[in-house]
Amino acid sequence: MVAGAMAPLGEGSDDPVLPDLPRGPLHAARARASFPWKELALFWEGPDMLRFKKNIFSALENDPLFAHPPGSLSLEKYRELNFLRCKRVFEYDFLRVEDLLGNPLRVLALIQCLGMYDWSLATKFFLHTLTFGSAIYSSGSERHFKYLPKIFNMEIFGCFALTEVSHGSNTKAMRTTAHYDPTTEELIIHSPDFEAAKFWVGNLGKTATHAVVFAQLYTPGGQCHGLHPFVVQIRDPKTLLPMPGVMVGDIGRKLGQNGLDNGFAMFHKVRIPRQDLLNRSGDITPEGTYVTHVKDARQHFSESLGSLSSGRVAIAGMSVVNLKLAVSIALRFSATRRQFGPTDEEEVPVLEYPMQQWRLLPYLAAAYALDHFSKSLFLDLVELQQGLLGKDRSARQAELGREIHALASAGKPLASWTAQRGIQECREACGGHGYLAMNRLGDLRDDNDPNCTYEGDNNVLLQQTSNYLLGLLVRRDQDGARIESPLKTVDFLEAYPNLLGHGFEASSPEDCLDSSVPLAAYEWLVCYLLRESYQKLNQEKQSGSNDFEARNNCQVYCCRPLALAFLELTVVRRFHEHVHQPDVPPPLRAVLGRLSALYALWSLNQHTALLYRGGYFSGEQAGKTVENAILALCAQLKDDAVALVDVIAPPDSILNSPIGRADGELYKNLWSAVLQQSKVLERASWWSEFSANKPVLGSLKSKL
Amino acid sequence: MVAGAMAPLGEGSDDPVLPDLPRGPLHAARARASFPWKELALFWEGPDMLRFKKNIFSALENDPLFAHPPGSLSLEKYRELNFLRCKRVFEYDFLRVEDLLGNPLRVLALIQCLGMYDWSLATKFFLHTLTFGSAIYSSGSERHFKYLPKIFNMEIFGCFALTEVSHGSNTKAMRTTAHYDPTTEELIIHSPDFEAAKFWVGNLGKTATHAVVFAQLYTPGGQCHGLHPFVVQIRDPKTLLPMPGVMVGDIGRKLGQNGLDNGFAMFHKVRIPRQDLLNRSGDITPEGTYVTHVKDARQHFSESLGSLSSGRVAIAGMSVVNLKLAVSIALRFSATRRQFGPTDEEEVPVLEYPMQQWRLLPYLAAAYALDHFSKSLFLDLVELQQGLLGKDRSARQAELGREIHALASAGKPLASWTAQRGIQECREACGGHGYLAMNRLGDLRDDNDPNCTYEGDNNVLLQQTSNYLLGLLVRRDQDGARIESPLKTVDFLEAYPNLLGHGFEASSPEDCLDSSVPLAAYEWLVCYLLRESYQKLNQEKQSGSNDFEARNNCQVYCCRPLALAFLELTVVRRFHEHVHQPDVPPPLRAVLGRLSALYALWSLNQHTALLYRGGYFSGEQAGKTVENAILALCAQLKDDAVALVDVIAPPDSILNSPIGRADGELYKNLWSAVLQQSKVLERASWWSEFSANKPVLGSLKSKL
Repeated sequence: MVAGAMAPLGEGSDDPVLPDLPRGPLHAARARASFPWKELALFWEGPDMLRFKKNIFSALENDPLFAHPPGSLSLEKYRELNFLRCKRVFEYDFLRVEDLLGNPLRVLALIQCLGMYDWSLATKFFLHTLTFGSAIYSSGSERHFKYLPKIFNMEIFGCFALTEVSHGSNTKAMRTTAHYDPTTEELIIHSPDFEAAKFWVGNLGKTATHAVVFAQLYTPGGQCHGLHPFVVQIRDPKTLLPMPGVMVGDIGRKLGQNGLDNGFAMFHKVRIPRQDLLNRSGDITPEGTYVTHVKDARQHFSESLGSLSSGRVAIAGMSVVNLKLAVSIALRFSATRRQFGPTDEEEVPVLEYPMQQWRLLPYLAAAYALDHFSKSLFLDLVELQQGLLGKDRSARQAELGREIHALASAGKPLASWTAQRGIQECREACGGHGYLAMNRLGDLRDDNDPNCTYEGDNNVLLQQTSNYLLGLLVRRDQDGARIESPLKTVDFLEAYPNLLGHGFEASSPEDCLDSSVPLAAYEWLVCYLLRESYQKLNQEKQSGSNDFEARNNCQVYCCRPLALAFLELTVVRRFHEHVHQPDVPPPLRAVLGRLSALYALWSLNQHTALLYRGGYFSGEQAGKTVENAILALCAQLKDDAVALVDVIAPPDSILNSPIGRADGELYKNLWSAVLQQSKVLERASWWSEFSANKPVLGSLKSKL
Repeated sequence: MVAGAMAPLGEGSDDPVLPDLPRGPLHAARARASFPWKELALFWEGPDMLRFKKNIFSALENDPLFAHPPGSLSLEKYRELNFLRCKRVFEYDFLRVEDLLGNPLRVLALIQCLGMYDWSLATKFFLHTLTFGSAIYSSGSERHFKYLPKIFNMEIFGCFALTEVSHGSNTKAMRTTAHYDPTTEELIIHSPDFEAAKFWVGNLGKTATHAVVFAQLYTPGGQCHGLHPFVVQIRDPKTLLPMPGVMVGDIGRKLGQNGLDNGFAMFHKVRIPRQDLLNRSGDITPEGTYVTHVKDARQHFSESLGSLSSGRVAIAGMSVVNLKLAVSIALRFSATRRQFGPTDEEEVPVLEYPMQQWRLLPYLAAAYALDHFSKSLFLDLVELQQGLLGKDRSARQAELGREIHALASAGKPLASWTAQRGIQECREACGGHGYLAMNRLGDLRDDNDPNCTYEGDNNVLLQQTSNYLLGLLVRRDQDGARIESPLKTVDFLEAYPNLLGHGFEASSPEDCLDSSVPLAAYEWLVCYLLRESYQKLNQEKQSGSNDFEARNNCQVYCCRPLALAFLELTVVRRFHEHVHQPDVPPPLRAVLGRLSALYALWSLNQHTALLYRGGYFSGEQAGKTVENAILALCAQLKDDAVALVDVIAPPDSILNSPIGRADGELYKNLWSAVLQQSKVLERASWWSEFSANKPVLGSLKSKL
């Protein structure tokens, strides 16, 4: 049966899509798995996607430009190499538009494959092609389409300039201005002062020739029409020197993603043609009259939800990639690293310790659960965008936009924080070897970190989701509207508040080994937090707070956990349904069911205090039952861990971590990498500073 | 009164110990404080310590060698600069032995001052002087004291070589050997294979000439006497070239502390004189007979507890420093960064948001609470070491050693994890500006990170503390011994198990505004977890687990939280007592009381699920009361935050973070630092790679 399933993957050919993994110390751990890993890979990705990813990975592996140089590069050198690699990605043209229509998930897969290799490359490439490109395509009109072919032959290089040095989250408060001058039919782009400089813009530091710049549009007479996007030339493509009036530079080293050149720009009365206003939501006539088809702020907002969501959905997927890589490294390490044992003579792999299992296996389960969620949300987004392209103005389309916006606004925080904490746990679980840069856990942490704050700070974004949920309740109370949504993520709230009468019914850990138990608990929990948030908000308003204060005072212990719990419920539900569908191959059902239950219970257990407080749990046994079920699931999954990692880990050359290689030759791989580094055995160039010039103890004491 | 208190600090002189802070945007926030910050600084540190720190900071500030170069350095350059700075620290000789006896806290203060500047420097200096030096002093005997003056004139440079590439936590399993050859009266140091190489050793990579190497000692006939320390020469001090038979090198870039050269070494039958065995616990006669005064493993263990504890106590203090620096940066940023507001026109500092307060202020309180704890524990350790030096073999001395070991083994995990999470929260709370390397939050995170895993992985260390607590219960049950300890940290357990009948009595947030409420809850909690751990351990043993398995199966949800809760209780208790003592100046009592209550409640709130589960909390109100008290304390403390930071932050030149400078000129400072970086406005050297050599889309497609 396995052989049959593998046939479409070229099993037996010289270059199979899923080659056997090298034998080595990990072989024994792999052999203990309860399921065939290749069958899970096929079920999880599908043959088309496996082939697509294999093509990308093989190209990078076989091209010396993508070889990882030992040691670290200077900022300048890393930027150069990253730029050359970015050009090479164009030459490979991994993703043609016609392929894309057949399987839109390929976009996500391409981002993720390049990111698995190096996020600096992925962000550089996609900021230019997708972010800059789609800003022009979707905010502009036909007069701007001339820019699109120039993106793909790299005649120009683009960036997206929204954030200013003093404003990020509060986009409305951006201070760059665009004044229209009807005498020349030009717009004058200007930064009033240093605090209004565009800042943090990826690709702007050294490479961008053009930017989509957001500025407050003023018509003659001084009326402000709000923030609009403009195409502004930054540098001369022939020389890469700045255009007159543009002060552009590099913001310097960041915690991670240093192959990407983030930059700043100030504009001193830079004139651009009127036509370079991206005019989808508003335009200026040659005489200087502002015209718009947008009726009100609400419609404008509604139309922009799709593009806001797409960034967040992409970031959720990027975070999942980082989590996958980190757990792959830490679990392969843990299955081969031995320390202590029942006797002084015998040492056991650290993965045999319940503590190590509990530290790592929930993050493995989270990687699967969030991977499924992020792919499913991406497909929902594709549906939304197809509706937008088809000019669907139905109520369902609008409702779908709001639902996806709510899911993306909490999905990004949940995924990025889970990855952040998971990578940190993996780094610590690998001890000193996790602290060695070559093993990559530091880069993963550093490259994942901005996912928590860009495209909206996580804590700020969560308010979008809680506002959405509170809005549903208000609508029901005021208009008697049913609580339902196109993707059905909120339909269970129809049972609010009756659902709050439910209680926990499992009485033994065995009862909890299916994710339906935590799923029911999560439905109660979201109802409980919704009620708490709703009541608190009303109390605040009744006690005289204005809307701004009232909302701010409800965030910490009400709205924030409400948004997170709702998203966790959605992730748990989608994963639960995915692994319980009838077409799951029988050999995979047990392991997938365990992953689903482990993720659900482990997530839920963060909220045990609320389950007790609100009366869903009562008595000592309830809390203990959940804990014991988590430990039982960890014990059941530990022998499957290495095979589960084999499904999600990229090839060794992409994973690029000596302690995480597939053969498990931990120390041989580590030594080989250590000895490849520059001047590893050589005396330091400054050795004579030790041998001569001895310090005299206290000789500078008089200076104190 | 304030003026009076300041007189000994040289107020009014040209160079006061506590100079006024520069005026700027932070002035308004500072002026809102409920207390005079200089008076708190004086109370917190004492005039002697303030002067000592001021001397160190001034020396570094005035010496160009310690100026921070803009941008980042290559590994080679950073190592060189760090070595030169280390030599300079000898020349300043900040800490003379006679000063030390007067105030032993000065050692801790010197480590912390140098660490505030750069941990690479602090670790390089102290690994050589303290770790290497005291290993020789306390493990050796008079015949080794010849090495000590050579340490201080830098004739030699030392390191401490215990960890091997395949063994860290399990020290007993180290595999380097030392065979005695009576014919030449030499010891033969040998690494049997690559896996036994010494690895991770700080200073070994490029600079050490000598190492204290731990190896299994064998006498002729083949008997192994266990792990012993030996002085082994690694490099020739004249040339810094390796000694014959020593393969020594650098392990490469780490996540942080890259100014320090961590290294590896393999020994190929390296012969050293018999005398270079550090013979405090065992020696070899010229004929090859092993002699020891140590009666049994228990005595050997007991004698080594002090040195194990000192590393952990130091690391707890180092972690606190990192937390102090991070909250200083994030809170000054939050008091000056404005985003959104009640109207579109008015933006408020982000510190005005309850969410931002809740994210940061508990970590500020933690910095104070843990700072006090780490200093008090250091003084306890000094008492222990004075007993050791005085050959005190009393039962109290032994008991003190065990108690301090238990406190240090959980104190290091609690402090390092609190710092880890606090720095991450600070980094996120500063948004993109927190992700900019120059603002230092990344370096703090990276430099703090090893505190979680070295000198014992945190999760492994916690077992020492839970074993200690369980042992007290066993001794009481078996021998009827009273539960009490020299430092009285466990005396409350005399009330076990009766204390478990207590319940939470506060009914309004106002009741919780004093830390005595959470203190009582913590005593209950520790008793509860002690009972859970004890019962679980017995269940495991009764169901047939051997001791190894039984202990492993009790860690996750019993022993681990037991150890952490016990340490949190101790930190809360010591801070509570410190701020409620009669000599606290009246103007400081309110703010210190709030810090104490906030830290206590916020820590306790992590355990709310257990408080409910075990019946200490009942009803919805208990949990809400604690949450509301936390939010109320945050609101009360927000206007004191900047002044509280002024007390713990070093001068700007040491803090070295543009967004954290004392004047609060956030954007001016940021721009000034951005523009100082190398080639910030210059075109990239590889610009022609863009302008010429355009990629042809899909030209390499055929290679796929």
